[in-house]
Amino acid sequence: MAEVATARRSRITPEREAELYEAVLELLREVGYDALTMDAVAARTKSSKATLYRQWGGKAELVAKAVRQNKPGGFGNIDTGSLRGDLHALTMHSDDCQMEQNSALMRGLAMAIHGNPDLLTAFKEHLIEPEMAEFRRVLERAIARGEVHADNPALNYVMHMMIGGFAARSLIDEQPPTQAFLLSYIDAVVLPALGVSAG
Amino acid sequence: MAEVATARRSRITPEREAELYEAVLELLREVGYDALTMDAVAARTKSSKATLYRQWGGKAELVAKAVRQNKPGGFGNIDTGSLRGDLHALTMHSDDCQMEQNSALMRGLAMAIHGNPDLLTAFKEHLIEPEMAEFRRVLERAIARGEVHADNPALNYVMHMMIGGFAARSLIDEQPPTQAFLLSYIDAVVLPALGVSAG
Repeated sequence: MAEVATARRSRITPEREAELYEAVLELLREVGYDALTMDAVAARTKSSKATLYRQWGGKAELVAKAVRQNKPGGFGNIDTGSLRGDLHALTMHSDDCQMEQNSALMRGLAMAIHGNPDLLTAFKEHLIEPEMAEFRRVLERAIARGEVHADNPALNYVMHMMIGGFAARSLIDEQPPTQAFLLSYIDAVVLPALGVSAG
Repeated sequence: MAEVATARRSRITPEREAELYEAVLELLREVGYDALTMDAVAARTKSSKATLYRQWGGKAELVAKAVRQNKPGGFGNIDTGSLRGDLHALTMHSDDCQMEQNSALMRGLAMAIHGNPDLLTAFKEHLIEPEMAEFRRVLERAIARGEVHADNPALNYVMHMMIGGFAARSLIDEQPPTQAFLLSYIDAVVLPALGVSAG
């Protein structure tokens, strides 16, 4: 059974996949995207380049999937019964240390995206779209429960608000976003804009 | 009189200063921050490097002031009598073409900031702080008029919301922020978060 299930995509087990992603993130933090090579990933993980290319197609997709696996929020099945609960749960998914590490990593990758259109494409497919879909599911449940009006214009801007909180925290406040900051930002900005009481 | 007024800082007239800033922005768009030299600015503007250094101290300050002079929003004396009017007026200050040009310029400079701490310092002093002060004045008048409660927690996050709108527009929607987008974002997000009706 296990043999059949893993053979669908490849011989790589989920544990081995997680190990590979961890090594890719390590290398990214050490040398950055532009200097990262598939040779270095192969050497660090003791795998063959052929396996890496067969499994991931290329560097951009490998990096996007490694970041996704590690990202704050995750793409779990959060359903707490309230919009505030769901948004807070998405935030609580990673601790402050992870958030600080990810914040540095994402700044580096945001710069690399400018010179690498394939990285932007991979990011959209494997990170931005799945994250937007997760937010849409959370918001659709809030509409179904009657918490948010279906025609509330802020529904189109939830990702803008969240990304703004993250990005501006580094720029204005010169500190990485913490859980406490994001929870307070959700209560002060995101929920009131959607017409939901934070109390 | 004019002699005395301009001599306070230097022999450079406001018209000449505006010309210089325009040339700096032109060069920035052509070669980017890292490749921009004071020699090139001196040559392009037919001024001496000594004048440039006496007037601006260095490249970072010169660039920050050039961007400030050109920036959407400006730092005028907007006072329309309502928070919505003031925020819309700040946005209407520049047209979509300027906004698109500035958006590209700011992306390049945001990248340069990572490798140039003196550019970050100059940006904070000449761009971020004055812009935050302008927003604070607008918000303080709104509190004084009774439009916004003085203890509304979203007051701490107005710049986060605005920067988020700008930054996420490029990333999520793959288009530069337009006036129409920003006006709609202010009405859907910023005003409701502050407890002000957009209607």
